[in-house]
Amino acid sequence: MGLEIPGFTFSITCAGIRGTERADMALMVSDPPARWSGTFTTNRVKAAPVLLGMKRLRDGAPISAILVNSGNANACNGEQGMEDALMLCRETARLLGVPEEQVLMASTGVIGQPLPMDKMMAALPGLVERAGQATLEDVARAIMTTDRYPKWELEDAPGYPRVKIGGVAKGAGMIRPDMATMLGFFFLNAGLPTPQLGAITKQAVAGSFNCITVDGDQSTNDTVLVLDNGTPPEDPKKREGVAGAVSEKLNAVMKSLAWKIVDNGEGVNKVVTLEVKGAQTIEDARRVSESVGNSPLVKTAFYGEDPNWGRIMAAIGYSGAEIDPGKIRIAFEDTLLVADGQWTGIEAERKVAETMKKRAYTVRIDLGRGNAVYRLVTSDLSVDYVKINADYRS
Amino acid sequence: MGLEIPGFTFSITCAGIRGTERADMALMVSDPPARWSGTFTTNRVKAAPVLLGMKRLRDGAPISAILVNSGNANACNGEQGMEDALMLCRETARLLGVPEEQVLMASTGVIGQPLPMDKMMAALPGLVERAGQATLEDVARAIMTTDRYPKWELEDAPGYPRVKIGGVAKGAGMIRPDMATMLGFFFLNAGLPTPQLGAITKQAVAGSFNCITVDGDQSTNDTVLVLDNGTPPEDPKKREGVAGAVSEKLNAVMKSLAWKIVDNGEGVNKVVTLEVKGAQTIEDARRVSESVGNSPLVKTAFYGEDPNWGRIMAAIGYSGAEIDPGKIRIAFEDTLLVADGQWTGIEAERKVAETMKKRAYTVRIDLGRGNAVYRLVTSDLSVDYVKINADYRS
Repeated sequence: MGLEIPGFTFSITCAGIRGTERADMALMVSDPPARWSGTFTTNRVKAAPVLLGMKRLRDGAPISAILVNSGNANACNGEQGMEDALMLCRETARLLGVPEEQVLMASTGVIGQPLPMDKMMAALPGLVERAGQATLEDVARAIMTTDRYPKWELEDAPGYPRVKIGGVAKGAGMIRPDMATMLGFFFLNAGLPTPQLGAITKQAVAGSFNCITVDGDQSTNDTVLVLDNGTPPEDPKKREGVAGAVSEKLNAVMKSLAWKIVDNGEGVNKVVTLEVKGAQTIEDARRVSESVGNSPLVKTAFYGEDPNWGRIMAAIGYSGAEIDPGKIRIAFEDTLLVADGQWTGIEAERKVAETMKKRAYTVRIDLGRGNAVYRLVTSDLSVDYVKINADYRS
Repeated sequence: MGLEIPGFTFSITCAGIRGTERADMALMVSDPPARWSGTFTTNRVKAAPVLLGMKRLRDGAPISAILVNSGNANACNGEQGMEDALMLCRETARLLGVPEEQVLMASTGVIGQPLPMDKMMAALPGLVERAGQATLEDVARAIMTTDRYPKWELEDAPGYPRVKIGGVAKGAGMIRPDMATMLGFFFLNAGLPTPQLGAITKQAVAGSFNCITVDGDQSTNDTVLVLDNGTPPEDPKKREGVAGAVSEKLNAVMKSLAWKIVDNGEGVNKVVTLEVKGAQTIEDARRVSESVGNSPLVKTAFYGEDPNWGRIMAAIGYSGAEIDPGKIRIAFEDTLLVADGQWTGIEAERKVAETMKKRAYTVRIDLGRGNAVYRLVTSDLSVDYVKINADYRS
């Protein structure tokens, strides 16, 4: 199996964290060590690997490996949780022959159960030995929890075919702006300096993983890591060109993966892009999109394919944004269903009912107050969502 | 049928707003006209009857009648909505022989459909004629939408058996703090002066209808009206005694009705009281209770009878409140499931699993940071909730 992204190798294993049938650990190795940036959950209850990752990001050492497990979040485990995460990083570093601080960890799964350390420690030698035997898709599969399909992308930087942008992501329930229970790992050989990598990451995350919601919950474990182990081009013009191309493509890759996270969210039957414009401020546009995108009544109407626009009006009304009900316009794709805050009639409603039968569509909300715009990708709230989440641990 | 509360008479009818089988209009008449107070939705999208009620409250005239309909919210109907509400009030006033400004209106049901004025106007003479032929329970039934049972209370003021406190309420889906899609009408013959009535109402609503949530949505039509047509006692001591007794009982009556609103919320199988203490501020305690009480993941765990306390920790973490994860304690009834932010073990979890089989129980969250307390009554999120709301209009 050839290298998909020069300098990065992957391996996966089934350590038995969540049964014996599915891969539940993955190792991503960068040789040489990579410059990196990351964003983490803003939840005040942070899992041990998140706290460790934040510390390592502040310390600024390069990264040689990321160890990931699914099936257990290693959150709310107190000091033991941090000791376990450190021990796993230390052992991985020893087996790889790299400094301990060059290994990061990420976990996802049930909160508050101690990691099954015996099983995980026993799995490490095999993971390290088999580095290079797994593909991005294998890794994407190993980090799934309730995801329905593996999510990964591999692209060239436009105009620079040797510069690769690869990424994997997981996240199904507990997704909301600020990246709840989602993990994303991105691999570049672009040679970007660390500060530029940080800026590009921040911008790409803001336009992708922070613009999706499935249930409005936000997890203790969200982590996006971007690693770059390339050598900077000597020509300053080329450096600039590569940076621009990487930024453009990383945006696209993260957007695509974020969309897929909603598309395969727990019990999701509809992927609805909310486009809110005409707000006085971006903050107001964001408030409206989140209020509508997280409203159980709106989301059950999406599920029921019912053009119940009154629920959208109500959610706009309690969003906290500055609005004038009489100026609001709501369209499903290109069909205007609400104008001047009122129903446009049965013809439009019939068209909208047809649109709502599609799996994916856009709802356009115009507040008619200003020029600010915000886009949020949300889903329906289905019977399956409830069933999946009522049974998750049993 | 005798008068349940001296000076108040009720009638109901089926105007055919939502089919021909169920009562969908009610009239509540006060003779003499009543002093009154009210609280209304804070949603910026307000139904016409809400806007009219707010205006009448500012104008300060006494009230002779409240006209209510279910099946149609008269919201998002533009100027026509207000004209229709005014016409119905005017005609009711004419039939009763009272000034127009002494009639209030309230509506609940689907948003954005014009009121069926022909049917409603035709129903008014019969409603007025039959004043006195309906009970509080009949009224409670006529204002139901997706409610499963009628909700009403009739009590004496403690120590003053001639002073009655009667009330009806409706509200099933779209319930959250700030009284979303709930209607409540209360009838007193206590002789309280208007400012005192306002203060007592505000306090009772804050401790009842504003402390419940079913789905976190908030409607365009929420209205609580409290009418008092009694003559003030001449003795100042008695006046004071009556005011205290009424305040106490109105609190209890509203709390009881608020609890019933959750209990018979759409698809509700569990009524969970969240008691958050140890917060630095009441605002923080409220944030935590609302974050936990509206989390779809927490609510599906209630539904599934799964002691998935990690979801509660996560919801506390993203509430925005000042917290220290290592200080958090969570108990179900008297069983401590989380101490110092960590699981207390399988014994406790088994006990909690038993508690969760009950229809109603209390979850106690101690933030360990201060002395502020807040209580919120919430529900599970069930398969039935989704089914009911996906099919609401079809």
